Amino acid sequence: LTNGKRLWQSLEELNKIGATAKGGVKRLTLTDLDRQARDLVIGWGKAEGLSIRIDKIGNIFMRRAGGDPSRAPIMAGSHIDTQPSGGRFDGNFGVLAALEVVRTLNQHQVQTAAPIEVAIWTNEEGSRFVPVMMGSGVFCGAFSLEHAYAAKDVDGKSVLEELTRIGYVGDETPGEHPIGAYFEAHIEQGPVLEDEGKIIGVVPAVLGLSWYDCTVTGLEAHAGSTPMPLRRDALQVATTIMQEVVAIANRYQPYGRGTVGFVQNSPNSRNVIPGEVKFSIDIRNVNKALLDTMQGELTAFIEKTAQHSGLAIKLEQVSHFPPCPFHEDCVAAVRRATEKLGYPHMDVVSGAGHDAVYAARVAPAGMIFVPCKDGISHNEIEDAKPEHLEAGCNVLLHAMLERAG
Amino acid sequence: LTNGKRLWQSLEELNKIGATAKGGVKRLTLTDLDRQARDLVIGWGKAEGLSIRIDKIGNIFMRRAGGDPSRAPIMAGSHIDTQPSGGRFDGNFGVLAALEVVRTLNQHQVQTAAPIEVAIWTNEEGSRFVPVMMGSGVFCGAFSLEHAYAAKDVDGKSVLEELTRIGYVGDETPGEHPIGAYFEAHIEQGPVLEDEGKIIGVVPAVLGLSWYDCTVTGLEAHAGSTPMPLRRDALQVATTIMQEVVAIANRYQPYGRGTVGFVQNSPNSRNVIPGEVKFSIDIRNVNKALLDTMQGELTAFIEKTAQHSGLAIKLEQVSHFPPCPFHEDCVAAVRRATEKLGYPHMDVVSGAGHDAVYAARVAPAGMIFVPCKDGISHNEIEDAKPEHLEAGCNVLLHAMLERAG
Ligand SMILES: NC(=O)NCCC(=O)O
Ligand SMILES: NC(=O)NCCC(=O)O
Repeated sequence: LTNGKRLWQSLEELNKIGATAKGGVKRLTLTDLDRQARDLVIGWGKAEGLSIRIDKIGNIFMRRAGGDPSRAPIMAGSHIDTQPSGGRFDGNFGVLAALEVVRTLNQHQVQTAAPIEVAIWTNEEGSRFVPVMMGSGVFCGAFSLEHAYAAKDVDGKSVLEELTRIGYVGDETPGEHPIGAYFEAHIEQGPVLEDEGKIIGVVPAVLGLSWYDCTVTGLEAHAGSTPMPLRRDALQVATTIMQEVVAIANRYQPYGRGTVGFVQNSPNSRNVIPGEVKFSIDIRNVNKALLDTMQGELTAFIEKTAQHSGLAIKLEQVSHFPPCPFHEDCVAAVRRATEKLGYPHMDVVSGAGHDAVYAARVAPAGMIFVPCKDGISHNEIEDAKPEHLEAGCNVLLHAMLERAG
Repeated sequence: LTNGKRLWQSLEELNKIGATAKGGVKRLTLTDLDRQARDLVIGWGKAEGLSIRIDKIGNIFMRRAGGDPSRAPIMAGSHIDTQPSGGRFDGNFGVLAALEVVRTLNQHQVQTAAPIEVAIWTNEEGSRFVPVMMGSGVFCGAFSLEHAYAAKDVDGKSVLEELTRIGYVGDETPGEHPIGAYFEAHIEQGPVLEDEGKIIGVVPAVLGLSWYDCTVTGLEAHAGSTPMPLRRDALQVATTIMQEVVAIANRYQPYGRGTVGFVQNSPNSRNVIPGEVKFSIDIRNVNKALLDTMQGELTAFIEKTAQHSGLAIKLEQVSHFPPCPFHEDCVAAVRRATEKLGYPHMDVVSGAGHDAVYAARVAPAGMIFVPCKDGISHNEIEDAKPEHLEAGCNVLLHAMLERAG
């Protein structure tokens, strides 16, 4: 069994980097804080005798050698970048749980047939740069390295610039790295496990996702002297779309999701009618047909709104992955490990995207969820119980051992 | 008659300070650019032999002595701060038209009984700091100097700090400065004169205005894993209010106005349900009863929305002035001057607020409008014809002379 206390202490240590006043973490991808966090975890890996490899998109792989040189590594990991007002567990738990598996194996001098690897994927959150799940996306070939390198943040800095700046452009070509199986432990980020009183969620699938940038262009004019009928108010048109995003999601329950998380209003002066509004759209659902239907309704609504308002509306897809069912062997391995350890469990579909979605394209993959307080994540108040994290880590250990032999 | 070419050249000179690539001006109040513009215009005033006085809120008064020491000055002015994406004429025209009146009087060695003064009021635009029309508001006692000093911009800098930094905290107590009559020339900032083919607008009144800050507080949570029914999405609630602001204005035509110009969404990450949205509300109408009704409907809607959504909604009034009819003598003086000069004219109610609104509380006041292209203002493409500006300046000269004797 793993050492929950050691896991917790490492989490606390890591979360000093970018700690916020409200008890959360702000450690945006490819910032100096991200570099510090990478350096810290790599140091821990080296202390456990792991060999380090870094690829061209900055993904980090830390390997514990196996007994059988012909076998591909059994990998576990997640990410250590966070949201601008992020929590302490999202991603961090998965990486440190994988490290704790290694520490446990070292402590008990367990020799596995396949190597064991800890993965730290670059820019999972997608908050600073799109596409989301960038490192694992490049790794599995969902999009190109060049596409990822070219992504810019709101200040116009590119991924390549920032990755170079923090010194994490590695040598390895992304994807030239065989994986025998991939597991990811993560907090649920939703309320289901807590509501049902379960400790482990076995994750059969992840919702598919489409992200868009939408821009509405009107005409800046004076808020006092411009009569209402003559206005071309970009914000008024944008808000009807923002509301429709949620209305569409509500029509395709229980798995439909619709969110506008980012808004940039211009010129953003209180007595100027907005001339341009840019905003993000995030829609998700559990199967391709439903997600396609939602996308269709969104584009139709936007076309209708453009015609009706006479304003120009641009809609651009910036991230997309279809719903992802995990490999039945890995799902079964997680379930067996959970049952063996005797934890109350249930199946939970993941509403959040994870690097496991892209890992699943190149290897059998599975996920392990543990509860988080009130189902809240992407919030500084995100919280989880040490004993639940330890349970998730134990399930990870046993599922990995089953595959690693 | 005034010299339209000289007026135009001074406008061009002034508008080099903060000139934007798109042909507009960005010269926010109390910035270094504002200081440069103040210095330039004061230099011109000194060259005309004017004596300069500055008050504690940074209002600048440049005086040409009169023959009768017992008489209060006849004043004309406006402002030289601009919107973030402002035009070249809004405010600047009024100040330089007043200066052109002085230059014309000097050139023709005209001695008036009352002194003539050029006023440059601080922070008319209200974009960086509220309340709007700050300098004239403090001058007339609409709100206190301390209240104005304490106002902060989005970066947390205060008016007092910034006014001190640019060196424009004067000695004079605001308002301890008698005014015989006040005139302000301004572009219309609306489409009426152009549509009707008139050159001069005689302004009988200005719409009353209420500005609010509204804050909706929900709960930040994950955009993928949080089921729709459990969300407390601050942006979704805010957008219903944003739409109602416009709906209310549409119900009280032809003078009702409703605008949301400023929006700040938080944490503003595409996969985080917004936890807090702050936005501005600007409503206006032509008489107190209608403006009160609009305010009443707004607060009622917000109460209902707070109850219905369960989210906290804070509404705070940050600027207010009632509809302002101008003094009949001044309105008549403007009309007489226009008729004497033979310009096609009509009455136009001002949708925009002006320093004249506050000057009207301490002296008889009146305004002169000239057309602007397509009625567009608070936009870098704001435009006006030199011959219209010259006409407005001539009307200003004659109206002032009538009052100054
Ligand atoms: N797990 C997680 O927070 N992923 C970020 C990508 C998403 O929005 O689902
Ligand atoms: N004239 C002008 O643009 N004033 C700014 C205040 C307002 O919004 O009316």
